[in-house]
Parts: sequence; structure tokens; C-alpha cells
Amino acid sequence: MLTYTLDNDNGKSLYIQLYEKIKADIINGELKKDERLPSKRAFAKNLGISVITVENAYSQLISEGYIYSVPKSGYFVSAIYAPFPSEKKDGNKQIYSSTHKIYKYNFASNGVRASNFPFSVWKKMLKVAFENPKEVMLPSDAGGINELRQALCKHLKEYRNMSVSPEQIIIGAGTEYLYSLIIQLLGFDKVYATENPGYGKISDIYSANGVKCVFVDTDGDGMRTDRLYESSAQIAHLSPSHHFPTGTVMSISRRYEMLNWASEDKSRYIIEDDYDSEFRFTGKPLPALQSIDGEGKVIYINTFTKSLSPAIRISYMVLPERMVEQFYKKLGFYSNTVSNFEQLTLALFIDEGYFEKHINRMRNYYKRIRNSLLSEIKNSRLSDKLSVLEEEAGLHFLVKVETDISDAELVKRAEKNGVKISCLSEYYRRNKKNAPKHIVIMNYSAIAKEDIAPAIKALDKCLED
Amino acid sequence: MLTYTLDNDNGKSLYIQLYEKIKADIINGELKKDERLPSKRAFAKNLGISVITVENAYSQLISEGYIYSVPKSGYFVSAIYAPFPSEKKDGNKQIYSSTHKIYKYNFASNGVRASNFPFSVWKKMLKVAFENPKEVMLPSDAGGINELRQALCKHLKEYRNMSVSPEQIIIGAGTEYLYSLIIQLLGFDKVYATENPGYGKISDIYSANGVKCVFVDTDGDGMRTDRLYESSAQIAHLSPSHHFPTGTVMSISRRYEMLNWASEDKSRYIIEDDYDSEFRFTGKPLPALQSIDGEGKVIYINTFTKSLSPAIRISYMVLPERMVEQFYKKLGFYSNTVSNFEQLTLALFIDEGYFEKHINRMRNYYKRIRNSLLSEIKNSRLSDKLSVLEEEAGLHFLVKVETDISDAELVKRAEKNGVKISCLSEYYRRNKKNAPKHIVIMNYSAIAKEDIAPAIKALDKCLED
Repeated sequence: MLTYTLDNDNGKSLYIQLYEKIKADIINGELKKDERLPSKRAFAKNLGISVITVENAYSQLISEGYIYSVPKSGYFVSAIYAPFPSEKKDGNKQIYSSTHKIYKYNFASNGVRASNFPFSVWKKMLKVAFENPKEVMLPSDAGGINELRQALCKHLKEYRNMSVSPEQIIIGAGTEYLYSLIIQLLGFDKVYATENPGYGKISDIYSANGVKCVFVDTDGDGMRTDRLYESSAQIAHLSPSHHFPTGTVMSISRRYEMLNWASEDKSRYIIEDDYDSEFRFTGKPLPALQSIDGEGKVIYINTFTKSLSPAIRISYMVLPERMVEQFYKKLGFYSNTVSNFEQLTLALFIDEGYFEKHINRMRNYYKRIRNSLLSEIKNSRLSDKLSVLEEEAGLHFLVKVETDISDAELVKRAEKNGVKISCLSEYYRRNKKNAPKHIVIMNYSAIAKEDIAPAIKALDKCLED
Repeated sequence: MLTYTLDNDNGKSLYIQLYEKIKADIINGELKKDERLPSKRAFAKNLGISVITVENAYSQLISEGYIYSVPKSGYFVSAIYAPFPSEKKDGNKQIYSSTHKIYKYNFASNGVRASNFPFSVWKKMLKVAFENPKEVMLPSDAGGINELRQALCKHLKEYRNMSVSPEQIIIGAGTEYLYSLIIQLLGFDKVYATENPGYGKISDIYSANGVKCVFVDTDGDGMRTDRLYESSAQIAHLSPSHHFPTGTVMSISRRYEMLNWASEDKSRYIIEDDYDSEFRFTGKPLPALQSIDGEGKVIYINTFTKSLSPAIRISYMVLPERMVEQFYKKLGFYSNTVSNFEQLTLALFIDEGYFEKHINRMRNYYKRIRNSLLSEIKNSRLSDKLSVLEEEAGLHFLVKVETDISDAELVKRAEKNGVKISCLSEYYRRNKKNAPKHIVIMNYSAIAKEDIAPAIKALDKCLED
């Protein structure tokens, strides 16, 4: 008869031990399909345990489908498909992660310095949010909680002169997620145009979502409409208020050309990516495409990644009024991706005026950083080799370097000196050959003031020979 | 000459007023393309304002592209495409939202009662998370922060006997989001099989993502493998530990059949949705498919929506080891969708043992609710018309009602009496005609103890005539 050694002292109850041993024998094939198991009484006697222990073990095995019972006949092994060999564990396997390499001085990161996050006020607002537990614990609308959508309406009115209603606003966990919602809304069969050069992640996301993505050249006014007409695209993804990486601000006439293009076909839409419009330093910001769009052709997107922190994953889009119904019909079944706690915290943060204060504080802070960086460049040993090209809007500018060194070599040398930089040429997805060379992008949002001088010194070194 | 009335007292600076008026005239066509604007000096004199005011207004208009200057010649109106008529605001327009209707007694909601959320401990952990601002403010890995991935590994080992490494774990803002990541990973060209009957949202998500979704019948052991073989599906989406809504637990032999099916073709995979496995009340839980999968064919998914709160949007998936590289190569560019604050808070919550305590507390709580509900049904006037069908696992059970009333009528009558219920037949996507009738799903996770008796009384009423 089947015999197992059970251990009174191994911390597991006897029935569990018995259950596990029988199960193991079924899995490893010791006990075969339809083989009869000992009767409870005989098995108990054989193992020196109580009948109830065997009964418990058998019950568990039955409930898990390893054995079956035939009334008045006994217990039998079920048909179990041969299990598979355990996956081999490789001691030296590579660990995959996208963890960001830490550089001493990083001009390629669009991150935000942790020390600039308004921790104490955020904590205060979070505390208030916690005082409304019932409200927060309700399942939220697909678009987000009302408090935040209302706060954003007010904010958009004040900052961007945009008149929108809360229902047009859809909250999401990051712009990347919102892009995928937009694709689901506008269609997987559409062709999406992105800017060339441009922020590479955008086309990566379109590709990952399995939709066709084309690259349309830009000029000093933004995406070229003549090229857009030539392309097969129905959807144009633009960053009119501050193009990355060139810094171009789309001219007002180009804006109207774009709206005109969209109005000419039912299937055409514009995605307006307004990611760092809060940080324009001179003049009044240009009107958002959304605010001059009379035909409901613009989906506006913005995020708090730049203005607050990438650790707070809250972005939002503004749908054209007539698209709201379509959104709820097609995608209203989704749960919102941002926790209600953080939504309410951000709503309070905006409503109480802290966001405005934070933006103003950050604008001054970035202005100082930008000015230090510019003057450091001007006063550097190699200032005659460097010229600043674009310093109007946003949190980066371009520096033209007079050198014969290739862009790849420049980036490599900088990295050796502890400085992470990127070059404009890296952002071209087509016409790469014609991409302007020796133009370095200086993202300064993540750089500390005290690091500016040593970073520029380190950059100087790269050009020495 | 162009003349405008400017107002010293309207709160806006004179240059902004002038800028706005000229801009309005350009947009409405009063000022035409290439029309010459007055010289700064003459204009200033005409309007009785300073030259610098006109200069400021012109500068702003130039920077926005509305006008251009020709050196030594003057200022001219740019080519602006005709703007579009403003979108008409309809006073009586319908407000779209997915806001959940509030019912007096809701047996159709899989929500969680706010009062059960461990607020004080969560706040405590949040506070600790805030003490590590630098760490939290770093951009997180596409898969999530290490602390949480490690905490989940330990949790999965203890609760599900799953041996996985942190890099296999991918955190995401809700299972719905993770499904879309899986589609991006496995392919938009694949056919996805979901259970019939089943949780409708799953197929909604596949459809919204533009992939083909087929419905495969289930029996008492779970999804039928014979039907799966007949289908064209490569990916099987299963809830083996507790099928919704039938409550079926997939038998161990069916589990092996499923793994066998997956192993027969390179493109085949299984998505194991383990959504409420924490709340099994009798016996030991069955081994997760993931833990008996030797060929790396199972993607395991779980969520904290049920076990903590739907307000905390944290879910995770466990990739097969050999898929980790593929994930990072294809989707590693994504930012994680859960805020670092909440990730760290949850990691601490798990690490400090609070999650285990919470689960135990909730398990007892739900057991009491379930027992009250069952005894209330048994003691009700109409107990002979009701029989409970499935009460083994998870947070719902089924009640068979002896009645001639149609399911639709039953739901309607219940709603009139303030009770929201759903019937099993609603969850059939194919073979709807053969769907069992008069089986009510009792989701009790959102119901208060004191509401059980009146809710059952109200249900009784529906069957009176």
C-alpha cells in the first residue's frame, strides 16, 4: 500500500503533508490515471494517522481535481496531463530594466529636481483628500473625478483662455496612456503624422499600438502643411507651443493652416501636445489650437509631469465637445487610471491656488537656471565655438557647436566626462542625412544650479582636441 | 487711420488691449493680408498713447505671427487662413458620463465599502513614503519601482507559492491598462479567447484595442479546451481561480489541458486573471496556472482593486521569464502609469505585514456578510423559491430563482424596489439562447451588513406576483 512518512513537527498539519505528497506523486506520474487510492480507513491505519486526516487530504485533492471519488467504490486518480519540466534558472541571466543610468550632469533628461516638488503643500492637500474618504472611494467616472475636471477647466480658462466644460476633460495616468486612448477613439486604421525631427517616444507609442505612423518635416513655423497634405495621414500630432527639440513655436498662420487641413476631411484630427506651455519666458503665449478651433477638430493634451513631477502620473486631454458622446459610448466602460486620492489631491492643489504659485516659483527658478547656464556658456573658454540658437520658450535650448567632431563622438566624449547630452540629429526619423549637425540640446530642468559651472567645464573638455 | 478706443481702467494694460483689438480685426478679416499697419509713431499719436505701447503690441503680434515687419517699410498683416465659426453652444445638451447610478442595495457592483479601507495605516505608510522624496521622485522603470516589485514577489511566494523574480513583475494602473500592454506585447494580429459566459469588460477591451476576440464556452471545469482547439484563438484569457459570474474553479486536469494547449504552438499564451483569489473561503487555493507552467506560457495578472479599493489603481502582471527581455525591448520606453508615491506606499503596506492583516480581516468580514446573506435568504418568506448554487470561492454566489418571470423583468422589478441585481444570462456573449435563466448573481462586497435584511425583503417583493 501507498506509504508516506509524515512529520508531526514540520509545522504543516498532517493532512496538508499527506495532500502534498499524494499530489506530488500524481504530478510526477507515480500515481497513474484511474489508479485506485487506498480506502480512508486502511490508509489511516497504514500511516498511523486518523481517518479524518486522510479524509481532509482526499477532500482537498478532490476539490482541486487531482482525484475523483466513485460512490461505494473508492477514490481514483484523475486524468492529469503530463506536467512540463521546470523552467531552468540561469544563474548569470541578464537583468532587464529600463532603469535610467545616473549621470553626474544630465542635459538629456527632461526630469524635474525632487527638491522642487512642493512636498509640504502636497502633503497638506493629501490630508484634506483623506478627510473625504467616502467620496474618494467611489468608483470614478471613466473621465476622472469631477473635482479635478472642474479645477482643470478653471485653470485652462485662466492660463490658456480655453473655454471647456468638465465633461470634455479626460484624466489619464500619463500622456502615453492618453495617446493609446486616442488611438482607440480615432481608429487603428488611421495614419498618424508626427513631427520630423521630433520626440521619438510619440512614434514609438504609435508603432507599439500597431498603427501606421508617418514623419512629416517641420520648418521654422512648425509642421509643414504642404508635406502633411502629401502624406496619407488623417491625424496630425503636433506640439505647437514649443516643439521638441527645435524649440519652434508654431506661427499663428500655420496654426490656421493646420485647422484648415483638418476641416477638409471628416476623418482628420489634430492632437495638440501642449506639454510645457507653462514655461514660456517672453511674450504672451500663443493661443492654443484648441482655443481657435471652431470645428471640433483638436484634441488638446497636457500633463503635470513637467510642471509638478514625473512621479505624479496625471495627464489630461480635452476632447472636442461633439466627441464626448463618442468617447463615452466607445470607451466609457474603462475605469480611470489615476487613483482618486491623487486626483482629489491635485484638484485641491489647483483650487487653493498652490499650482499657480508653484508654476510662478518654477518659472522664476528655471529663468535663473537658464540665465546661469547661458552666461556660463558665454563666459566659458570655448564660448567662440558655441552659439545659442533658441532660447524663447520651454525648458531647453539649442547650442550650435563649431567642431569637426561627429555628433556621435561628441555625445561619447561628453559621457566620458560625466555629462549626458543629446544632439538634434538624433531626433530625425527621416531625412537623417540632411539633419543639422553639431547642435546640442540643453535640457536644463533637471540640472542643479551648482552643477552648471562644472558641467560646462566638462563640456569644454570634449572640444579640446 | 485705424482707430480703437482703449480703456485705462479695464484692468488690462493698454498694450494688451491694443494687441487684442488688432488681432481680432485680423481674425475677423477687417485687416487683410499684407495690409499695412500705421507706423508706431503715427498710431501712438492717433490713439493718444505712447510709442512704446504700440511697439509692445506690435512685438506681441509679430511673435504670434499675426503681423510681420519689413525693415524700413513698416508692419503688415500676415496671411491668416479664414477662421472658423465658433462652435455653437447648445443650452440643453446632454451631459455624458459613466457616473455610476446609486442604488439603495447594490448586488451588481463589485465595489468595496469605503469604511473597510485601512485609512489610518495607509496614511502612515504614505507618510513614510514621503520621507524618501528623492527616491520617489526618480523616473521609475517601465515595470515599476523596485520596492513594490520585491514586495510583490514575497507576497506571491507566501500566498500563491509562486516563485518569481522582481523583473518579471510589471506594475500598471489597473488591469484594463495591463490588458492593453499585453496586446501590444503579444500582437494585434492575434485572436484572443475569452470565457462564455464571462466578465463583459474583458472582451470590450479587446474590441476597443482593435483585436479579434472570440467567445469560448465554459463548463463545470472552466473554459472548454475542445472548444478552444476549434477556435482560431492563440491567446486564452482565463479566470481559473474563480470564474465570474459562474464561480467555477478550474479543475487541475483542465489546468494541465490548458497548459498543454498553449505548449503546442509558439504563438499561444494564457492570460491568468487571478482577480479575487485572496477570498477563497474553503479548502486550500488551487495552484495558480503560473506556478505549474514549465514552458513560460502564462502571464499572470492580479489587482488591488478587490483586495484594497478600486480607488487605489494598482495592478500587476507576472511575465514568463523569457518574455521579460521582449517586454523591455518592445515596451521599455513607456513610463510606468502608477505614481511612485502610491507604489512606495503599497510596498511599505505589504512589507510591514499590513496587507496580510487587511486580507485576513476582510476575509472574516466577507465571511460574515456571506453568512448573513445566506441565512437571510434561507429564512426569507420565499426561501423555497430560492436555492444557492455556488458558494465556494470569491465575493459573489449565484441564486437560482423559481419563477416564470423573465430575467429582464426580474432585474427591472428589483430596480423598482431599490435593489440592483444582475442575472447570469446577461453574461453570455454567444449561445445566449441556451443561457440558464433565473439565476441571480449576488455580489456582496459592496453591501452593508445592516442592509442585508431589507435588501432580501425588497427582493422577496419582486417575486410576489
